[in-house]
Amino acid sequence: MNQFLTPGPVFVPPFVLEAINKDVIHHRSPKFQVFYKGLLERLSYLFQAKTVGTMMGSGTFGVASMMYSLFQSGEKVVVVNNGKFSARWVDEGRLQGLEVIELQKKWGEGVSTPEVLDQLDTNVAGVILTHSETSTGVIVDVENIAFAIKRAFPGVLIVVDAITSVGVMPYYHDAWQIDGSIVSAQKALMNPAGTVAFALSDLAVGKLKPSHSGDFRNLYNYIQSNKEFTHPFTAPAQLLYGLDVALASIQGQELPAIWDKSHQSARTFRLGLEKLGGKIYAQPASEALTAFSFENWDMEKIKSRLKSEYGWTLSSGQGKLKGNILRVSHMGTSDRHTMEALLKDMEKMIKP
Amino acid sequence: MNQFLTPGPVFVPPFVLEAINKDVIHHRSPKFQVFYKGLLERLSYLFQAKTVGTMMGSGTFGVASMMYSLFQSGEKVVVVNNGKFSARWVDEGRLQGLEVIELQKKWGEGVSTPEVLDQLDTNVAGVILTHSETSTGVIVDVENIAFAIKRAFPGVLIVVDAITSVGVMPYYHDAWQIDGSIVSAQKALMNPAGTVAFALSDLAVGKLKPSHSGDFRNLYNYIQSNKEFTHPFTAPAQLLYGLDVALASIQGQELPAIWDKSHQSARTFRLGLEKLGGKIYAQPASEALTAFSFENWDMEKIKSRLKSEYGWTLSSGQGKLKGNILRVSHMGTSDRHTMEALLKDMEKMIKP
Repeated sequence: MNQFLTPGPVFVPPFVLEAINKDVIHHRSPKFQVFYKGLLERLSYLFQAKTVGTMMGSGTFGVASMMYSLFQSGEKVVVVNNGKFSARWVDEGRLQGLEVIELQKKWGEGVSTPEVLDQLDTNVAGVILTHSETSTGVIVDVENIAFAIKRAFPGVLIVVDAITSVGVMPYYHDAWQIDGSIVSAQKALMNPAGTVAFALSDLAVGKLKPSHSGDFRNLYNYIQSNKEFTHPFTAPAQLLYGLDVALASIQGQELPAIWDKSHQSARTFRLGLEKLGGKIYAQPASEALTAFSFENWDMEKIKSRLKSEYGWTLSSGQGKLKGNILRVSHMGTSDRHTMEALLKDMEKMIKP
Repeated sequence: MNQFLTPGPVFVPPFVLEAINKDVIHHRSPKFQVFYKGLLERLSYLFQAKTVGTMMGSGTFGVASMMYSLFQSGEKVVVVNNGKFSARWVDEGRLQGLEVIELQKKWGEGVSTPEVLDQLDTNVAGVILTHSETSTGVIVDVENIAFAIKRAFPGVLIVVDAITSVGVMPYYHDAWQIDGSIVSAQKALMNPAGTVAFALSDLAVGKLKPSHSGDFRNLYNYIQSNKEFTHPFTAPAQLLYGLDVALASIQGQELPAIWDKSHQSARTFRLGLEKLGGKIYAQPASEALTAFSFENWDMEKIKSRLKSEYGWTLSSGQGKLKGNILRVSHMGTSDRHTMEALLKDMEKMIKP
């Protein structure tokens, strides 16, 4: 059983590593084009979106590219900030010269639709939502917030950091009228870090502008290359093989089954946690991970004992939450059985 | 024998793929720090530089990060432009708001020290040189040009695109007084694309300025994280394992032996080429690759016959050179024996 349960990078299963361990195909060859065409189709299924693509880089790079490609310096965007990762969008927006309206929430707290709508007017170019905030485990109701925004302000671009939600929970990029979504390989896609995938709406594609062909942050270049099923820059070919088999496995099992696996992992853990007297940190909580604590326990001590005595790897809290919470993943290979085994070992520690 | 001879991505040898195929270490763990400390030491040896680091991304990303981190908008930089990859620095500089003085040379032509010096005055903040231009195979005498620049203008930052020169030809970042160097994993380092490594001088490090911790283009963040032997963002851990074993292999054989292997690959090919009546495109020529042609032959036809009849993969010319030249790599596993075998097959085609 996989005992590596940090909320990304997740455990990379052997079938993915085997795919990566293939002879290199040159990324400027017809063979690569055939391969990449198939990958894009599987990615469309994952995002439930017509227009998709991949880039080499981390989630931070994905965030920056979206900001850079969809908005112009001086434009106004609203960012819901309720954790470390959503805060990144605030920083990146300001760095790029956008006027960022920060809807600041406490860490671990959700946001309501009216709160977001209150920030909007006809001068707002975009709203940025972090669907599942990996630092705290809180979830934002992207579907309903997007629905309300588009009804009131159809021209506003909705960009979603779906880094720990796509492949974990129901996500329908096109049907929910999302304009830009980002996901990283090292989360539900069970791959090594190195690639980031995106989806765009027609509205978003219409806003892309050419800069120069070497501008690696400009999604325009990726969309152009997609037409020939190729990559605008050196493609991370080995990593894309890994991504492709993971996408094929998700498509083979079908998304609802994948979502259900994470759901059951989360439910099992949370029920068991409650029985042990533990507390879930975030409300409402994402199914990608659970951030939790036990009163009167040093959580770092629990983390290190889980590792040394039982072999489990969990993550600490980030920033100001270090020591106060631990985080456990429900993504990728983490399932109900994994959680049952983890809970059994936790019980031995908490109620010896 | 490896018959995959494009000048990057190069053939990834089995020992590198095996290293990549390892269980994931979390990039925020003490185990990763121990690993990364060793990797940085080996990278110092490779660059012959005190201060080094790695980033996730392609060569283009490395180029952009250097520009972004070392120069401020409005500053004047001189770029020697004699091919597709050096042209990228011109575009990227302008995109970032630098005043770019373009020293335009014909594709395939070198540049002399006086030509570069002529462009300099006390208002110039930096000079950007592409050591080995992968689109044409031309080499620039970085050592002597840097020596002359530093004697006349010690404050000017010298940035070198060493993407196809580090690990191929003698390169001494610190001793040559280079301020910033970039190399990609998929060239002499025999790795899949996905990581880029850099070296900086003390002068360059002194110019780095903090922006925000999520600013993935700012080398300041990487240098800060290096102090704790960690990565500022999600580290491409699997790829770094591959990079590390390649660096260990280079260090084990010692750099002069590695340089000699590429030198012999290049010499063998060029002597044989001449005997067959072929022509080297660039002058002076880099040892990383040879761009070549045969009069009265369609080079794309030679390329496709070499592939289909003999199993060799070479690269076409890029942009306007497509059809006029082919390019063959002398990096990584390409050695004298590989070239002898390739020449034998080429002879059957050219002089049947």
